[in-house]
Amino acid sequence: MSSPGIQQPTPQLFFQTINSYQRTEALKAAIELEVFSAIGEGKATAREIAERCGAAERGIRILCDFLCIMGFVTKDGQRYNLTLDSAMFLDKRSPAYLGGCTEFLMSPMLLEGFKNFAAAVRKGGTAASEEGTIAPDHPIWVTFARAMAPMMALPSQLLTKLVDPQANKKLKILDIAAGHGLYGIAFAQNNPHVEVVAVDWPNVLEVQRKRRQGRRV
Amino acid sequence: MSSPGIQQPTPQLFFQTINSYQRTEALKAAIELEVFSAIGEGKATAREIAERCGAAERGIRILCDFLCIMGFVTKDGQRYNLTLDSAMFLDKRSPAYLGGCTEFLMSPMLLEGFKNFAAAVRKGGTAASEEGTIAPDHPIWVTFARAMAPMMALPSQLLTKLVDPQANKKLKILDIAAGHGLYGIAFAQNNPHVEVVAVDWPNVLEVQRKRRQGRRV
Repeated sequence: MSSPGIQQPTPQLFFQTINSYQRTEALKAAIELEVFSAIGEGKATAREIAERCGAAERGIRILCDFLCIMGFVTKDGQRYNLTLDSAMFLDKRSPAYLGGCTEFLMSPMLLEGFKNFAAAVRKGGTAASEEGTIAPDHPIWVTFARAMAPMMALPSQLLTKLVDPQANKKLKILDIAAGHGLYGIAFAQNNPHVEVVAVDWPNVLEVQRKRRQGRRV
Repeated sequence: MSSPGIQQPTPQLFFQTINSYQRTEALKAAIELEVFSAIGEGKATAREIAERCGAAERGIRILCDFLCIMGFVTKDGQRYNLTLDSAMFLDKRSPAYLGGCTEFLMSPMLLEGFKNFAAAVRKGGTAASEEGTIAPDHPIWVTFARAMAPMMALPSQLLTKLVDPQANKKLKILDIAAGHGLYGIAFAQNNPHVEVVAVDWPNVLEVQRKRRQGRRV
């Protein structure tokens, strides 16, 4: 009933946007269930993936079809495959695995800030709590230091090679708000003459200390 | 550092999707604050919109810039304008206003079903409660009947004209799971010889009864 060239109003963007929280939850569930790792291991059909993930075949089929629509997997007949991006960032066996970041990105603290968005707009700033995430020793930064490190594994290596390509001179690095500490650690691993001073809350520095010792954080 | 023609993996889709709940919340806040109605009334700058919406100018500026990125408004210098779609569906003065739908689409009952998405996939069905939204007399359908009617105002009119263009013969309409009742009401308004039998839970039919009497639901 529409004429070509005449733009008809459509509520599509409204419905797509108001329901976009469902994309967050579906992706979070797929990571939690290790769907991407399962496909990466060679499980291809809904039945195979369901068995590996301890889930219902019906649930996996519906979830994987949605992941396909969102662009995280492809589907060929009844078989699902990882995209290049999902194989790199969402398969647990990949060194660039980002799935652990959801622990920080989906932390109740961060989500809370969006729960009453209108109040934040009225106030012109975070309405969730008095000081938000900048309160001294706020535990969210420990979660950050633990969960967000994988994201910076590759960039920190690349930066080190750019800034200190010779790696044979004395170098003093001041790492302010060091967080996971990956940048300082990369510099120190690249060059034995590097001295790093990492500044952060004591509880965050503790995560780095463990990481430098090669311990699980 | 990338060669043309060689696809580099990117975590962009991961970050965009995992944070897409923020789009839901921003749009909900804009509707709640009546930002679209304010712009529709001619308030154009962040300061003017903020004054009309009882919000901080900073909050409104950041929100409106995000709405612009999402495609709900346009920005010309410091002045915001509604898109064709937003003027039609998100300005309260429009007869096709859809903002009220958020009462249903964002109802705790529906959101709850997505809170533990992984559990639903494991089970292969809704994990939120035993019967979900199909429990007899479930109050969600009262919310539905009240909030979702505007969406069907135009389609119900169009359907009526298609099915009963003469509007001069006796016609009996059986409206199963009638909900907001708009389809039956449209048929009855189109043709005085129409008899409608609407079937739904009693609490839902009550909403229709009020609507037929022209009362506020």
